[in-house]
Amino acid sequence: MAFEFSFEIEAEDPQTGGRNGRLATPHGILQTPVFAPVGTQGTVKAMRPDELVTLGATLVLSNTYHLYLRPGDELVRDLGGLHHFMQWNGPILTDSGGFQVFSLSQTRKIDDEGVTFQSHHDGSYHRFTPEKSIAIQENLGADIIMAFDECPPPTDYEYVKRSLVRTHAWAQRCVAAKTRGDQALFGIVQGGIFPDLRAQSAEFLLGLDLPGYAIGGLAVGESKSEMYTVLDQMNPILPRHKPRYLMGVGAPEDLVNGVLRGVDVFDCVLPTRLARHNTALIKGGKLNLRNARFERDPLPIDEGCDCYTCQTFSRAYLRHLVKANEILGHILLTTHNIHFLLELMRQMREAIAAGQLRPFADEFLQHYPAVAVTT
Amino acid sequence: MAFEFSFEIEAEDPQTGGRNGRLATPHGILQTPVFAPVGTQGTVKAMRPDELVTLGATLVLSNTYHLYLRPGDELVRDLGGLHHFMQWNGPILTDSGGFQVFSLSQTRKIDDEGVTFQSHHDGSYHRFTPEKSIAIQENLGADIIMAFDECPPPTDYEYVKRSLVRTHAWAQRCVAAKTRGDQALFGIVQGGIFPDLRAQSAEFLLGLDLPGYAIGGLAVGESKSEMYTVLDQMNPILPRHKPRYLMGVGAPEDLVNGVLRGVDVFDCVLPTRLARHNTALIKGGKLNLRNARFERDPLPIDEGCDCYTCQTFSRAYLRHLVKANEILGHILLTTHNIHFLLELMRQMREAIAAGQLRPFADEFLQHYPAVAVTT
Repeated sequence: MAFEFSFEIEAEDPQTGGRNGRLATPHGILQTPVFAPVGTQGTVKAMRPDELVTLGATLVLSNTYHLYLRPGDELVRDLGGLHHFMQWNGPILTDSGGFQVFSLSQTRKIDDEGVTFQSHHDGSYHRFTPEKSIAIQENLGADIIMAFDECPPPTDYEYVKRSLVRTHAWAQRCVAAKTRGDQALFGIVQGGIFPDLRAQSAEFLLGLDLPGYAIGGLAVGESKSEMYTVLDQMNPILPRHKPRYLMGVGAPEDLVNGVLRGVDVFDCVLPTRLARHNTALIKGGKLNLRNARFERDPLPIDEGCDCYTCQTFSRAYLRHLVKANEILGHILLTTHNIHFLLELMRQMREAIAAGQLRPFADEFLQHYPAVAVTT
Repeated sequence: MAFEFSFEIEAEDPQTGGRNGRLATPHGILQTPVFAPVGTQGTVKAMRPDELVTLGATLVLSNTYHLYLRPGDELVRDLGGLHHFMQWNGPILTDSGGFQVFSLSQTRKIDDEGVTFQSHHDGSYHRFTPEKSIAIQENLGADIIMAFDECPPPTDYEYVKRSLVRTHAWAQRCVAAKTRGDQALFGIVQGGIFPDLRAQSAEFLLGLDLPGYAIGGLAVGESKSEMYTVLDQMNPILPRHKPRYLMGVGAPEDLVNGVLRGVDVFDCVLPTRLARHNTALIKGGKLNLRNARFERDPLPIDEGCDCYTCQTFSRAYLRHLVKANEILGHILLTTHNIHFLLELMRQMREAIAAGQLRPFADEFLQHYPAVAVTT
């Protein structure tokens, strides 16, 4: 079951860090930069897998913490693995479960061995260790799996510094625990907003010679300019010939700023979560479809958008659906939001191939003036 | 805007009352017998309109009461009518609002002029009269609209008898109130389970020479054999050359028993409502996908079913989705249930064309022994 993961750079933008790559996985080739919609519980909320394909999604992220608790990773394994279970035949990435343990579980106790926590469903006690995280991710069977790490408060220097020791030891234990040859284990560079700690973390993890590296611990409370500064620093440090993954980031302006700084892979619940809150992404902002001003609006969300929702329905109809709590509203907004981000990624790949990422990004980011920090 | 509605009988089953027809409407031809999924609030719950087309749906019912309250029939009219608003380009049927006024509204006061009721949303007061119901239905713009009637308790002879006087007067007022030439107004035969009252109601309404007739007031508390007995009586009384519509009926065994007795059109929330309760229709019964016995079941809902859900997903995955309250579970069960009923209708049309409805019905109904009352 060994698989030769490879990452080839097909084009590099001459003026920025942007690059187009081909990441080969057991379930197909990912054209990077790529955005992964999140299928928390083994389904991208409100989307059939064939609709995701139609939308151009190529990579889906799913959550180890959630699937471990329900339906259980061994059940998923026994039913043929996560790809078969959820009938997503493209590449899947699973996180390590660490982030959810810290953000969702009721109580948790962390020690150097691992983390004991209570399920957010029923309060039952569970324990994750690096070895357990890898075992779960091997049962799920994603193409890309993640090292188990601690995600510390990004602006607390002393905490982040102490936490790095643990995260690095856990990364080594993940490498040692891994048994499958058809999964790529990515390391996660931590270090908060502190350049010396980020450099130290990168140096340690690069020593493990992993097939890819994530930039972790961002989009968790620091400012956008702090995030972009970390990315500026990481771009020359991370090896050029390996994929870089910016975890949990999906705001349109962050995707552009990430690609400008050499990021290849992104994931975020943003498009699906916004849809649950009746909100559509548009260039430069958002529309809340519950708003009374859309009551009689015959226009689509975005006249320039070629998604099914915009090609078919008026804002007035969408407002009616969300006011009436109709599932179709949720479906149609999810469709639009995922399309919006995937189309942005496609346009960036095209701009990189044409050596035009800089002007593309400048034009796009002028619609986001409050956060237009460009490298 | 006049339209020549027509109903041609293409085949009659030699041994039963079953018949295949072509009902021409401004939005296309309906092959009957036909089952209409219900789009209560201008959307068949959890379904995109293009998915309904893929499933083979041709007719959709929507509810006057619901759309009048939200988003408002005048708004729908101003946005181009219900077809355009919900982007369903096939025929639509709207009910009169009467049934929902009696079943949903908080308080109501009925008099010979109409009904005053409180909205189930906010308690606000509203009044429906025959004229108002027609005005709303003209604003919505469905192909087939229904006379405003009272739906009495079907087994209370004295009440039903008194109610008929009002229902008949209201039918006449609906005819008089109608202004559009591109909508077919169907009358509704009432009379509960009482042959003399049904005959009296049919006689009165046939005198109005309407383009179609509904059999109303059934599936509201009487037994199935009482329902079938009414249908047995109505079959020879209703004019052969006009479509007959059995309102609110969609249980598989009732569809078969209805078609055996010459019914052409059905509607019911059953497939969408069952899906919301995690339940799939199968021949002879139902599966509740929350059941623990499906936890590790790799089979589809129905191995013989060619819907997207059954062609793609295991019961174990569906159980996971419904346990996790994932919208996709709702979508996939709705898809299966609508497909189940539409496929049953297709098979009955085929059987009628082949003169084989009797054996088809016998085989099908043996899976429903408790209710296999055949004519």
